[in-house]
Amino acid sequence: MNTTTSSPFPKVVIIGAGFGGLKAAKSLAGKPVQVTLIDRNNYHLFQPLLYQVATSLVSTDAIAYPVRRILRGKPNLDFLLATVRSVDLAARTVHTFTGDVPYDALLLAVGGETNFFGLDSVAEHGFGLKTLDDANAIRNHLLKQFEQAITEPDPSIRQALLSFVIAGGGPTGVECAGAISELIRMSLLKDYPSIHQDEIKVILMEAADHLMGQMPANLGQFTVEKLTEKHVDIHLKAIVSRYDGFTVELKDGRRIPACTLIWAAGVRASHLLDSLHLEQDKMGRVKVTPNLNVADHPEVFLIGDAAALNDADGHPLPMVAPVAMQQADVAVRNILHQFAGQPLESFTYHDPGIMATIGRSQAVAVIGGRTFQGFIAWVLWLVVHIAQLIGFRNRLVVLTDWAWTYLFSEGSNRLIGPE
Amino acid sequence: MNTTTSSPFPKVVIIGAGFGGLKAAKSLAGKPVQVTLIDRNNYHLFQPLLYQVATSLVSTDAIAYPVRRILRGKPNLDFLLATVRSVDLAARTVHTFTGDVPYDALLLAVGGETNFFGLDSVAEHGFGLKTLDDANAIRNHLLKQFEQAITEPDPSIRQALLSFVIAGGGPTGVECAGAISELIRMSLLKDYPSIHQDEIKVILMEAADHLMGQMPANLGQFTVEKLTEKHVDIHLKAIVSRYDGFTVELKDGRRIPACTLIWAAGVRASHLLDSLHLEQDKMGRVKVTPNLNVADHPEVFLIGDAAALNDADGHPLPMVAPVAMQQADVAVRNILHQFAGQPLESFTYHDPGIMATIGRSQAVAVIGGRTFQGFIAWVLWLVVHIAQLIGFRNRLVVLTDWAWTYLFSEGSNRLIGPE
Repeated sequence: MNTTTSSPFPKVVIIGAGFGGLKAAKSLAGKPVQVTLIDRNNYHLFQPLLYQVATSLVSTDAIAYPVRRILRGKPNLDFLLATVRSVDLAARTVHTFTGDVPYDALLLAVGGETNFFGLDSVAEHGFGLKTLDDANAIRNHLLKQFEQAITEPDPSIRQALLSFVIAGGGPTGVECAGAISELIRMSLLKDYPSIHQDEIKVILMEAADHLMGQMPANLGQFTVEKLTEKHVDIHLKAIVSRYDGFTVELKDGRRIPACTLIWAAGVRASHLLDSLHLEQDKMGRVKVTPNLNVADHPEVFLIGDAAALNDADGHPLPMVAPVAMQQADVAVRNILHQFAGQPLESFTYHDPGIMATIGRSQAVAVIGGRTFQGFIAWVLWLVVHIAQLIGFRNRLVVLTDWAWTYLFSEGSNRLIGPE
Repeated sequence: MNTTTSSPFPKVVIIGAGFGGLKAAKSLAGKPVQVTLIDRNNYHLFQPLLYQVATSLVSTDAIAYPVRRILRGKPNLDFLLATVRSVDLAARTVHTFTGDVPYDALLLAVGGETNFFGLDSVAEHGFGLKTLDDANAIRNHLLKQFEQAITEPDPSIRQALLSFVIAGGGPTGVECAGAISELIRMSLLKDYPSIHQDEIKVILMEAADHLMGQMPANLGQFTVEKLTEKHVDIHLKAIVSRYDGFTVELKDGRRIPACTLIWAAGVRASHLLDSLHLEQDKMGRVKVTPNLNVADHPEVFLIGDAAALNDADGHPLPMVAPVAMQQADVAVRNILHQFAGQPLESFTYHDPGIMATIGRSQAVAVIGGRTFQGFIAWVLWLVVHIAQLIGFRNRLVVLTDWAWTYLFSEGSNRLIGPE
């Protein structure tokens, strides 16, 4: 099956409608290629705000947007809602559960998934935070803990129900811990007056001896201080070894009763890449040339979390959206160069910085080599995300709603719904 | 288990946080009773706009709101998230899957559910439209039909995928048919350029020979005209007898290929009432005295869709929100009268009218005995629903978002998500 209409142009198939894949598809609009963008979901997800869905702050459609609407009116761009089974590099064909899609050039922008580092018990009983399903599951779970706690007669079980562990002291873990603590203290304690605030434990665990490892040490220290003010307990050098849904076991033997474990401690490339039988790094990323394609299959390009490439200093590029989006531009140009018989460009990463909120009103940021912390960093965070959402959503009212909710309200999406 | 704190006041248990039950609970705030409101969901659902979630117009949290937030700061009101198994009238105890709840007075506000009139095949393969799960399932299903249609090589299957049957020519069916037709023509056809508008069939079936049976005949005729303008095919005297998911079979032998059947042809009282072994009418409603309680169990009150009561002319009261809300006031006063040893009041229904939209910009309404149709009726519909949503949501921004989306936008909640 081939969903593209017959076209004289070469066929480009893009797998993944995340930041990288979507940007690549949009860049190919009007170019002399016929593009099929494949994703297993019919929406693009604004992942940086996923923790806000998980903590009841905003509704799903504030951070997810239908791909077809984004591609509307661009005749050389097709979308196919399908789950990819495998890629036949020799036959230049993508096998999906909906049929086969042949390509002349393939762009793998399949993104990342939660990396449980082989801890099966954590994968089984803990929560990742990479998909909308993850976020909905966390939201439902958090609310159910409170519903169960108020009718639980056993004090030790009640304590476990009201203990929330987040593993991973990077931006995702920090934002998640801050938001959960605020959700509980600003909203849930008002809704459950029989629960006292001293019964609540929000614990952030980090394997290293500092938070926000990608940032200078003073920002990590600032993050610890602000999270502590927000009643988050920080456990450093805490390495999770096992979790059964009730007790978090650490490598040093400590055991922490908690019915909630959110795993924000690692990301790896999508397992889909394993089926390609190409050389991968330890994060599952496929090694690419500086041109972002595969040495033995120059018609196959990879970007973002799917691609293993080092920066100028020899360090692996981080698995973050700016890498994916910058690589999308180069990959698109190289695909067009390749069809035109022109030489390919090399990719160079321009690091725009990194930022993370610590609840509402506090943040840490590194932008253009300068560090920011506190309220000014939070304003920067807000400006950057509003700017990104405008480009993404293009619907001012929904954006206003999001901004209003985020700034002035406690949010209302505390619905225990489907997962 | 009893979730209420020990209280010197008599215990009132309300089952159901719909329009009636929620209003009753709020009315009992500060009164000399200890109230436990039980619902299987943690949210109140604004059912009149359910069809807007089903047709991707608004997001879930625009029409659902956490019950605990509504009851916040009212110390004599408790909420229990629980599914009721049965009621032991003799022991004055509600059995839930979360434990037992004793009562001194019981208010059954359990509402209605879709009435498939014994058509098991329709119940199995068709969609009701009474719950948030229903609405999400319909939204996902509608979008999946288009995704499947564009890759479907068999023209007859493609036709069935693009045929949408709504059974029931009352307000719910009319609103649903109009909204589906508008969703397809205003949005989906732009997203699926390979589908031609002539391939789309939206069919509204009604067993009687006219639409909007509760309204004067001229409004039913107006509804037919406006729906026809909106490309909805009206099949009158069409009685569904069977549905296998692919073909709607009618009693007169007609067979209409359609992969979608939405059943808006009937409502009955919740099956929970069957376990009470009290006298019920053919809609499953329990017969109540004019005081809204049960003759043999005067401490048991029923309101709304759960209660069978005739109006002054001897006609059964309709299963609509205004009945439930007016009865909530009388039931609450009678519960307090009963505890105080005072005589009970009789219920009299004051019909505020009935209204239905026919897509955006057209509606029909009967208010205070006067009939309205067209744009003026639609403005009335809008004013009434905005007024109700303000009381319900109390969040002006979200309301603005809803109104904006409804008035000026095509909505964006076209996400195929969890059901």
